[in-house]
Amino acid sequence: MIWSILNMVEIFQLQLHKSSAVPLYQQLAEGIEGMITDGVLLANSKLPPIRKTAEHFGVNTVTIVNAYKLLEKKQLVYSRVGSGTFVSPLPVEHIPEPVASRNLRSFESGLSMENAINFTSTSLPNEMFPVDAFKEAFNAVLDREKGGAFRYMDSMGYAPLREQLCRYLMNYGIKTSPENVQIISGAQQGIDIISKAMLRYGDVVFVEKPTFYGAAGAFLSRGGKLIEIPLEEDGMDMVILENFLKLYHPRFIYMMAYYQTPTGISYSMEKKRRLLELAEKYDTYIIEEDDFYDFHYDKEPIVPLKALDYKNRVIYIKSFSKILMPGLRMGLIVLPKKIHQAVMEAKYTTDISTSGFIQRALEYYLREFGWGEHAAQARRYGGEKYRKMLSAARKYLSDVAKYGQPNGGVSLWVELPVGVGAEALCSRMLEKNVILTPGSQYDISGEENRHIRLSFLNLSDDKIEVGLKRIGDMIRAMLEEKFLTLP
Amino acid sequence: MIWSILNMVEIFQLQLHKSSAVPLYQQLAEGIEGMITDGVLLANSKLPPIRKTAEHFGVNTVTIVNAYKLLEKKQLVYSRVGSGTFVSPLPVEHIPEPVASRNLRSFESGLSMENAINFTSTSLPNEMFPVDAFKEAFNAVLDREKGGAFRYMDSMGYAPLREQLCRYLMNYGIKTSPENVQIISGAQQGIDIISKAMLRYGDVVFVEKPTFYGAAGAFLSRGGKLIEIPLEEDGMDMVILENFLKLYHPRFIYMMAYYQTPTGISYSMEKKRRLLELAEKYDTYIIEEDDFYDFHYDKEPIVPLKALDYKNRVIYIKSFSKILMPGLRMGLIVLPKKIHQAVMEAKYTTDISTSGFIQRALEYYLREFGWGEHAAQARRYGGEKYRKMLSAARKYLSDVAKYGQPNGGVSLWVELPVGVGAEALCSRMLEKNVILTPGSQYDISGEENRHIRLSFLNLSDDKIEVGLKRIGDMIRAMLEEKFLTLP
Repeated sequence: MIWSILNMVEIFQLQLHKSSAVPLYQQLAEGIEGMITDGVLLANSKLPPIRKTAEHFGVNTVTIVNAYKLLEKKQLVYSRVGSGTFVSPLPVEHIPEPVASRNLRSFESGLSMENAINFTSTSLPNEMFPVDAFKEAFNAVLDREKGGAFRYMDSMGYAPLREQLCRYLMNYGIKTSPENVQIISGAQQGIDIISKAMLRYGDVVFVEKPTFYGAAGAFLSRGGKLIEIPLEEDGMDMVILENFLKLYHPRFIYMMAYYQTPTGISYSMEKKRRLLELAEKYDTYIIEEDDFYDFHYDKEPIVPLKALDYKNRVIYIKSFSKILMPGLRMGLIVLPKKIHQAVMEAKYTTDISTSGFIQRALEYYLREFGWGEHAAQARRYGGEKYRKMLSAARKYLSDVAKYGQPNGGVSLWVELPVGVGAEALCSRMLEKNVILTPGSQYDISGEENRHIRLSFLNLSDDKIEVGLKRIGDMIRAMLEEKFLTLP
Repeated sequence: MIWSILNMVEIFQLQLHKSSAVPLYQQLAEGIEGMITDGVLLANSKLPPIRKTAEHFGVNTVTIVNAYKLLEKKQLVYSRVGSGTFVSPLPVEHIPEPVASRNLRSFESGLSMENAINFTSTSLPNEMFPVDAFKEAFNAVLDREKGGAFRYMDSMGYAPLREQLCRYLMNYGIKTSPENVQIISGAQQGIDIISKAMLRYGDVVFVEKPTFYGAAGAFLSRGGKLIEIPLEEDGMDMVILENFLKLYHPRFIYMMAYYQTPTGISYSMEKKRRLLELAEKYDTYIIEEDDFYDFHYDKEPIVPLKALDYKNRVIYIKSFSKILMPGLRMGLIVLPKKIHQAVMEAKYTTDISTSGFIQRALEYYLREFGWGEHAAQARRYGGEKYRKMLSAARKYLSDVAKYGQPNGGVSLWVELPVGVGAEALCSRMLEKNVILTPGSQYDISGEENRHIRLSFLNLSDDKIEVGLKRIGDMIRAMLEEKFLTLP
């Protein structure tokens, strides 16, 4: 009933032009067709009654009947005898996509190029993976548990692993207990499950601008409305944030406290505290995604937002894909108590549980090998690559582009000079066998064209040198072309 | 704008009683509060303007102002200066749950009892898992690939595995090619991802009645409307199905072609063909979940719906949890071409990919060990348990309960005598250390109280014997109690 009134409101906004050469019934049908294909009129909802519609537009009922018939012929609507005309579901291939799929496609195609200089990989090179330790762990688990290693597992995760992870989180300044820890198959699943547990159609979500497309895609696919909060050098603009908090009541705010994807920005301690105050004041939650803790190249320790979270406002999602190995598909969420049950159920209907075998192996690894040594190695390695990257950028980019020096993380976020579009640069670099990520991938509208992101963790020093030289040369060439074509 | 009109339509349906002792502003506030907590009024949508509302109800504007103020005090609404009053998002703990969470809870608590006679497990016992073969596979993959085994993986899955799986599917009569195969982390994830790719708020989904709660939960959580089609002994009632297909245009029909969860029913060849005809005629898709192919105890081969699918209407989801090992978290989808891209994107925003390490190990296992021997062993073992189960049921249940003889699968679906409620029986059996699944778990309304499901794959012959005796005794005791308490 409600939906049909909604449809009436929409359809009655159409304007019919009686002086047009296009017959009125066709004008009406075309107008309604547009609303169906744009997803404005919901599947299986009713079109307004023929008489009422004719009255509204001041036309004969035959006009409406013909319009509906035309739509039915195109299979855009269907009729039920005695009860009216209803909107057909869109064909599967025409369902509006919740994700900026263009982005995914280019991302995927980039990955398949061989021997390219690939600035898009954000995880450690294979040689840095603790493969031998995990081989020992897998075998020890199989010898100990036999088939038991492969049974169904509690949806929250393997209890001894959750205990280990609490000890591990203490190193990050995060104090929690196993009943607050949910095991997940990577950070992306964490975001997806939190959305499933908490987001309902029409809810508002605040994200940083720019933000990570994978997260935005998960929110959008749940019917969330995204509001972008601009980033400054030390975190979100808190004035704009509070103004928006007065206007909207977001279900949650999605952010990264340090080495943000894509900008590399870290929040100041002041902004972290302010963010928590505002979440409390306006009664909302914060999703903190933490991918890069161990990649800090400063002496100063960094502090996760969750470590300051005395009011239980932060849902902390930790990935092991960057610091450990992406192929494990492993991560954790630290949950405020209120959402335990909902998240556990969401995990169950998502994939029942994360592989119990891999969970057991990770537990063995953490217990027998500890974390410190691998983390220190990874940090040392990341720091070397970072300094190599900076020195090459100074040589080849500093005269034509700007970039922050995050002193951590695995990427540089580079602002291009006016006149050089990021999309154009990226596609021309592909011809030079260099793969970069354009800023549009991190922009909900897809319109950003000023930035590129260069991830350096998985490249040899030589490739960093050659890659940045080629990028700098190309930017200069494009600037010159532009100069030459000026009127 | 639209949402505020929708809210007006809803709120103007309220009746205020001027003669009541309860002040009018309070009546109005309570009416609106009910609509907010029931989720009728969407978060962040606008309440109708004060003057218009006052006019509608024939009251002073002060009454409306006071009603809105009361709601604001309760934090159910919030106001924006100059633009009106808006519905607050419900607190997280009050969001209407999409899943029948009661079911999940009892399921989980059942799993934690030790030494119980557990009739809820549907996978093979640990001793039947091919652990040694997988140990070899894991080590071979690590020796061959080193760290490469743990890199990010194409969202569709490991190409050589998808090739292996096509060969494997040929044994089932399913001919397909690797580009139609999507690797998933278990069948439940398959259902979740298909929902993400295809379902939009308001879409209709047809399910069997009764059906699997995990699937229903995934559809509901996407805003799907479920229509239940009753099952007969040889599949859905095709007359009712066609009648509903005339009334609604479902996005898809979810079903299992044999050894259905929970009833154990298999479709006749005639109904399988009819189902495909109807899907084509009414332009919809069928999701076929296949968990139990290899557990057929008859001489006759069984035929998946997908094997008959010449029109590409079937999305075939195959689990490896039952026949292989649940802890692998591995499965596959065979996709019609039209939905490839959408499903790949859904997988990406769900968990990027299934563990590449486990995918590689499964590929090695299939290549080096083949499938035939393990499947034959599992079938032999399942058949023995099934016959043991039937003979014990004949002894202890046949005088008081009815059950089908599916000659396949891993469960019996038992109809209780009138006067013995399934919920009551299940909770009383818990006291006797026997865990069963009540029929309500497979009913969307949760009201079914006539059936229990007994899964036998993971029980010793002794436990089957003792368990069924205890159940039979309890049913008889409950019938006697009922007889004694008759007036």
